[in-house]
Amino acid sequence: MADHNALPLVILAEKFASLPGIGMKSAQRLAYHVMSMEPEAVEDFAKALIDAKTQVRCCSVCQNLTEKEVCPICSDPERDSSTICVVESPKDVSAFERTHEFKGVYHVLHGLLSPMDGITPDRLRVRELLSRIGDGKVKEVIMATNPTVEGDATALYVAGLLKPMGIKVSRLAFGLPVGGILEYADEVTLYKALENRNDM
Amino acid sequence: MADHNALPLVILAEKFASLPGIGMKSAQRLAYHVMSMEPEAVEDFAKALIDAKTQVRCCSVCQNLTEKEVCPICSDPERDSSTICVVESPKDVSAFERTHEFKGVYHVLHGLLSPMDGITPDRLRVRELLSRIGDGKVKEVIMATNPTVEGDATALYVAGLLKPMGIKVSRLAFGLPVGGILEYADEVTLYKALENRNDM
Repeated sequence: MADHNALPLVILAEKFASLPGIGMKSAQRLAYHVMSMEPEAVEDFAKALIDAKTQVRCCSVCQNLTEKEVCPICSDPERDSSTICVVESPKDVSAFERTHEFKGVYHVLHGLLSPMDGITPDRLRVRELLSRIGDGKVKEVIMATNPTVEGDATALYVAGLLKPMGIKVSRLAFGLPVGGILEYADEVTLYKALENRNDM
Repeated sequence: MADHNALPLVILAEKFASLPGIGMKSAQRLAYHVMSMEPEAVEDFAKALIDAKTQVRCCSVCQNLTEKEVCPICSDPERDSSTICVVESPKDVSAFERTHEFKGVYHVLHGLLSPMDGITPDRLRVRELLSRIGDGKVKEVIMATNPTVEGDATALYVAGLLKPMGIKVSRLAFGLPVGGILEYADEVTLYKALENRNDM
């Protein structure tokens, strides 16, 4: 925004632009939109930002984001705590929960290994995962990181730590997305789908 | 966001989703991003929202958004106050200022006529425009509303009020793509449209 714009508007646009996926043009539109909102709505928005940051923390068990000491999933006696699904981030937990099929529990690493970016194992919540395994009740750990270089590296690294502890470690299946079109699948996915074919 | 998510996060995602052009999925990502921000950065963001809403108001002359009683453009003695460019919204002022070609001043209507949506002339800043014309120093009014049905209707309506007052009223040239949105026009197109303005 050029300097003829009111400074608080320029600052607000910059804040929006600092969010992922929002360019300067969209940020400007959002800042103008805020000007047209009711004062109470703007105050609620500001409060929601502060509340989310101050009231939400990591579950002491699975490290997912929650308002409580232990999150609703970890404290649910219906969930099978002997199966842990290891994911990169809290949004992955949301994605699995939307399937309504997984009855185990989660562990959120809060990142993936990426030595180039300085993300080494001690920056992830790996220690917390190992301490959950320590009590001998966990039977299987499902590595549900993304099928990317970093996701695969992280899955391999964690599997390497868990297997000597006698834990079954599995990885999400790779294949064609359901409802996807074969013609548009990339070569690696198609190869994986062929390799992992199932009897019918 | 499903109910396994922490409530403050759900609320924050809803606030983001209420902004124009942000869907629920993006809103969720933004809410998660806020969790990864430094507490001070989140506080700054919340403060920027409040500041923009409380400190920015309409210029008493041109109705553009500003922190001052009279905006920098209206109070700049270098600007030619005998030529008023009438626009729909503050973002259109930004668009014209980016051309660095227009030396006159602006008038922001804060909307376009749209009787179907209940936007009648009294909802726009037309009265403020007429009172600016009253002192006899204004020679030309350029109607720079979008080349859409509402934009044309508004331009015609305002022209109809101004012409009996002996004011020259012009309209931006149709260098703009018809049905397009002024804000997204590139600088050269916008400059050409300004240069080729026609009497109406």
